[in-house]
Amino acid sequence: MSFNRLIDQIVALDNPTVAGLDPKLEYVPTYIREKYEAQYGKTLEAAAEALYEFNTGLIDALCDVVPAVKPQMAYYEMYGWQGVRTFDRTVKYAQEKGMYVITDGKRNDIGATMEAYATGHLGLTDVEGESIPAFGADALTVNGYLGIDGIKPLLKVCAAQDKGIFVLVKTSNPSSGELQDLTLSTGETVYSRMAAMCDEWGKELPGKYGFTGVGAVVGATYPQQLTEIRAAHPSIFLLVPGYGAQGGGAKGLVGAFNSDGLGAIVNSSRAIMCAYKKEGCDEKDYAGAARREALRMKDDINSVIK
Amino acid sequence: MSFNRLIDQIVALDNPTVAGLDPKLEYVPTYIREKYEAQYGKTLEAAAEALYEFNTGLIDALCDVVPAVKPQMAYYEMYGWQGVRTFDRTVKYAQEKGMYVITDGKRNDIGATMEAYATGHLGLTDVEGESIPAFGADALTVNGYLGIDGIKPLLKVCAAQDKGIFVLVKTSNPSSGELQDLTLSTGETVYSRMAAMCDEWGKELPGKYGFTGVGAVVGATYPQQLTEIRAAHPSIFLLVPGYGAQGGGAKGLVGAFNSDGLGAIVNSSRAIMCAYKKEGCDEKDYAGAARREALRMKDDINSVIK
Repeated sequence: MSFNRLIDQIVALDNPTVAGLDPKLEYVPTYIREKYEAQYGKTLEAAAEALYEFNTGLIDALCDVVPAVKPQMAYYEMYGWQGVRTFDRTVKYAQEKGMYVITDGKRNDIGATMEAYATGHLGLTDVEGESIPAFGADALTVNGYLGIDGIKPLLKVCAAQDKGIFVLVKTSNPSSGELQDLTLSTGETVYSRMAAMCDEWGKELPGKYGFTGVGAVVGATYPQQLTEIRAAHPSIFLLVPGYGAQGGGAKGLVGAFNSDGLGAIVNSSRAIMCAYKKEGCDEKDYAGAARREALRMKDDINSVIK
Repeated sequence: MSFNRLIDQIVALDNPTVAGLDPKLEYVPTYIREKYEAQYGKTLEAAAEALYEFNTGLIDALCDVVPAVKPQMAYYEMYGWQGVRTFDRTVKYAQEKGMYVITDGKRNDIGATMEAYATGHLGLTDVEGESIPAFGADALTVNGYLGIDGIKPLLKVCAAQDKGIFVLVKTSNPSSGELQDLTLSTGETVYSRMAAMCDEWGKELPGKYGFTGVGAVVGATYPQQLTEIRAAHPSIFLLVPGYGAQGGGAKGLVGAFNSDGLGAIVNSSRAIMCAYKKEGCDEKDYAGAARREALRMKDDINSVIK
């Protein structure tokens, strides 16, 4: 009902990072792409199968050093339902390997509809009396623009199934301030109001480390806001994208963590998935390169937060 | 590159409404559910096949009287990738029958990721040089919390593929005001700022009826805000949920339309899908009941806006 399981794994591996699995076909080594093109032609099926093999290689190489993966649904939906099937198989494969899975979907809707998202992504779907996990991830990113109605169904599923959610507060992109930084008549910003709402919503999902099951997404590209939100809301666990490819460095992350090194998990996607390109190694060693980059990132971040 | 095609169909059928296809298994007549349970057991596959037959019956009955359908992705994701395959087949079936398809996904993310959503839902996915429509709907609902970065990739695809987007402005749910109604230091509300952003973003996608390709979602449950946004932004086409089951009546819709009866499209989901339950007719006549309800809704709305 909180992030206990995620934080247990962060502590066990001494690694507060998550590997984003956002696989565009162009990231996949040629030998894998050619294999499936030969089998299925230039089709969504071929792309989806290539992504799956790529993902399983990454998961095998990362599962004993990185506590969690974060598949980004957009990159699977780009390859149609075949891509979404690969997403589903990826979630299950990562969980079998002991990894915590955060589905990055930024879902949002009115209550009745959010109940369907909560059920599909974190809960159990009823089919004529059978309860079936549809996608069955461990956590889901969501957008809180619709207020508590769109969050309540998630809290219910999180409590019942020991899951968590991360709500967008201050996103990592350059234009995130266009709405999020606007000042309200009360003097607070839109993002700080959203953080306060997360704090309130999380009270139903307390956790043993002092963090609730309602976390917040705050970009590494905004170190000042990271520090501000961490300080203002000790019970909010942070998911921090934007390290690496998006330009956020390790030093800017310090404020996201408490003095004991807990409080946040930092995501890296492209830098890990495409490490073999940057390293210039044989593409058949793509998973080895991903592991080396993940270990480098772990050391980089631990060196500044401890 | 705008809503020209949608508005053409609204004018041709003299019907400013859209049928929401948000099919929970419990909405589907027993005879359809039993058929697929016998074939596939109590599985996501069985559920997904039942939803598809249900949808095609509805589309057949509605396609010559209703201009558009709006499948809500949450209800398909609830049934896993099998459900998403049904979503995909539903989009294509509705388009074959001449209907305009608005995918209700409320997608949102940073620029690079939004490009993947734009490609998957509205554009063409590249697979080794082949351009393939993954889901290929005509319009997509999106959430603008991340600002222009998350909108730009959509504008590009809309311009290239003659598609449109609807951005959440003032949603129909009871708690929508929790964030959206907050007053900014400038005196405007968060939702009115979002509407102004839509107005600005739409300038790249002008349309022949005077409406751009960047529309806004405003709930029928908030007639005052509907009227306010319609008046302040003549170039924004409105998608209006919340009529019927959510409690918004036809009278409250008047302000969403211009004097020529254009300017908005009103959604009804459950009232159409489950019309056979309310009517008490034979469940085998579920599609006929849906058509009768759709015609009733058309007359109800036309009676107040013209």
